[in-house]
Amino acid sequence: MPIPTGSNISALETPAVLVDLPRLDANLSRMAAYAKLHSLALRPHIKTHKATAIAASQIAHGAAGLTCATPAEAGVMGAVSRDILLAYPAVGPKLARLMALPRELTLTVALDSARAVDDLARAARAADRPVRVYVELDVGMRRVGVAAWDDAIALARRVRDSAPLEYAGIAFYPGHIRSEIQTQDEALATLGAAINSAREALDRAGLAPAVVSGGSTPTVWRTHEIGGITEMRPGTYVYNDRGTSEIGACAPEDCALTVLATVVSTSVPNQAVVDAGAKALGREPMRGVEGEGWGALLDRPEVLVTRMSEEHGILDLSRSDWKPSVGDLVRVVPNHVCIVVHLNDVIYGVRGERVEKSWRVDARGRGQAEVLNGN
Amino acid sequence: MPIPTGSNISALETPAVLVDLPRLDANLSRMAAYAKLHSLALRPHIKTHKATAIAASQIAHGAAGLTCATPAEAGVMGAVSRDILLAYPAVGPKLARLMALPRELTLTVALDSARAVDDLARAARAADRPVRVYVELDVGMRRVGVAAWDDAIALARRVRDSAPLEYAGIAFYPGHIRSEIQTQDEALATLGAAINSAREALDRAGLAPAVVSGGSTPTVWRTHEIGGITEMRPGTYVYNDRGTSEIGACAPEDCALTVLATVVSTSVPNQAVVDAGAKALGREPMRGVEGEGWGALLDRPEVLVTRMSEEHGILDLSRSDWKPSVGDLVRVVPNHVCIVVHLNDVIYGVRGERVEKSWRVDARGRGQAEVLNGN
Repeated sequence: MPIPTGSNISALETPAVLVDLPRLDANLSRMAAYAKLHSLALRPHIKTHKATAIAASQIAHGAAGLTCATPAEAGVMGAVSRDILLAYPAVGPKLARLMALPRELTLTVALDSARAVDDLARAARAADRPVRVYVELDVGMRRVGVAAWDDAIALARRVRDSAPLEYAGIAFYPGHIRSEIQTQDEALATLGAAINSAREALDRAGLAPAVVSGGSTPTVWRTHEIGGITEMRPGTYVYNDRGTSEIGACAPEDCALTVLATVVSTSVPNQAVVDAGAKALGREPMRGVEGEGWGALLDRPEVLVTRMSEEHGILDLSRSDWKPSVGDLVRVVPNHVCIVVHLNDVIYGVRGERVEKSWRVDARGRGQAEVLNGN
Repeated sequence: MPIPTGSNISALETPAVLVDLPRLDANLSRMAAYAKLHSLALRPHIKTHKATAIAASQIAHGAAGLTCATPAEAGVMGAVSRDILLAYPAVGPKLARLMALPRELTLTVALDSARAVDDLARAARAADRPVRVYVELDVGMRRVGVAAWDDAIALARRVRDSAPLEYAGIAFYPGHIRSEIQTQDEALATLGAAINSAREALDRAGLAPAVVSGGSTPTVWRTHEIGGITEMRPGTYVYNDRGTSEIGACAPEDCALTVLATVVSTSVPNQAVVDAGAKALGREPMRGVEGEGWGALLDRPEVLVTRMSEEHGILDLSRSDWKPSVGDLVRVVPNHVCIVVHLNDVIYGVRGERVEKSWRVDARGRGQAEVLNGN
């Protein structure tokens, strides 16, 4: 049964994900203005919202293209942008899905191995379509990427020599840089020096990167300080979360997304149980800062979700004079919004307590094939 | 593009969830035999599999009915069983969905508050349908349930006096009992004494419970030791996981579910990166036992997923002589299977490396309504 627009949030079955529309608009505008001010190409990562409705707003705000983590996401997002970066190596059966994407899409893939280059080149040749490639650098996170510039040069050369692949630039994700300002200063200086030395090494080898794509949320507003950077790929900024706020990458009032939940039990003293547990909030600890709990109430930030089962969130009331009753509604600001969105199919856009619209998390699934003749 | 039955698992786009069919069958049979041996009604909790295909197998193995956590799940599972327990208080808009379920379903709701009784009674009267009620006891977990038997008596009486509600029994979930055997002995004795005293108190008040429903996974094979118990509601046993195995509630070879993942990067020494991260494995720590990591490889249990990003799982190779290459496939036994299933839409049934069939996680979503005239 659809919800009529203009309904109060109390009409929604909980747990339900609410996005405050004025906050969302402000977040979209702020990042677009920042990128424009510093002449950075804005290529938002859709992992946070996984919704064509939001991606379309990002494009309308001047994004040059989109970043995706999977070919399935790229397939959905192709409906709103013709310029898609897969910031993830495509290996195995994923290559077939990537190559089956509409030919009018400009595809770029970030990768860090000769094997990924060769597999992608073979698939691109078979499909007879060009694919742009970023060589992924490890700038300290120790997750993916090559850490030796000789390896970066070898990969870039391999790409250049593997038509129809096109060597387009370098990518990096400094996910190791956290929130402390003094650490940030030093880390950004180190990062800038590393990127400069990589660019110079590639330049000397005749492989100057046209695109230098990178940045991460804790230092997102200082992305322009990284020398030579041309492109940023922020994700979390559209909605923000308790983590983003606690590390100072947004203000508390920039958190646009909350999980609406209902108090279902108050039978144990000093706590209340709501119907948002690990299957609605995810079990994501605070990172890079001290901070307990799995989320905090929007209008009572002293009340934390301190324990969770799959469908139960336990609110610790010991630091609050609030006396909730069964049936009361609460709005939880989650620690990590990307995971919350990934757990849901529908998001509600609200203005105050008024439900104005909804949109589907249409790139949530992995588009998994079913088995023929299976049951 | 569907996968032909009989394909090798290498045809699947990763991450993909595999269920070993012989292990699944053995798990289903073992629990059904246990319940039968001890004359316990088996009412499996569908939270682990969320699939009508598996629920139908549970019914075929003699389950008396099903347990669900949400009315949306109950709506889906109504297709395979006419006897559904909602082991969760129904409050707010969820009541409307509950009452809209097909009338041929026998509904039971577990609850712990006068407010939940009154709201349910009002909804049941308006819908003119009987609803059975279990009074939920807190036996030490401190999550939901009433801990004072006077409160249980008052609730049971309130239910009895609130036609068309029917007082059907008591429910409890001893989620606080962990895996250590000596602790278990003592905890089960304490639990049994508590349940007996509750039953006696209710009996004296003329409210003897026809059904005593409870148990939990760490002591699932000792459920019959709890005096007076008539019904068990196990969930995890269908698939099992690293957690179930480590606490000794199943053998390692009873773990039926794995996450198939592809090595996408080996650029950082002593580690390999696979394409199953927190969005595929969940971020569920081991509980009740020592154990690091977010999952372990099926055929190399010394290799753990020690770090995760949303789409990256980092395998620590420091305790292994295995030298993986980009493109290699691995199968991860996850810490907590219920969360993994909740993250997926399709499950693949395999025999060895042969993909035999697939089934949908058709009760995964929350059936969230969209907004009329929204966009």
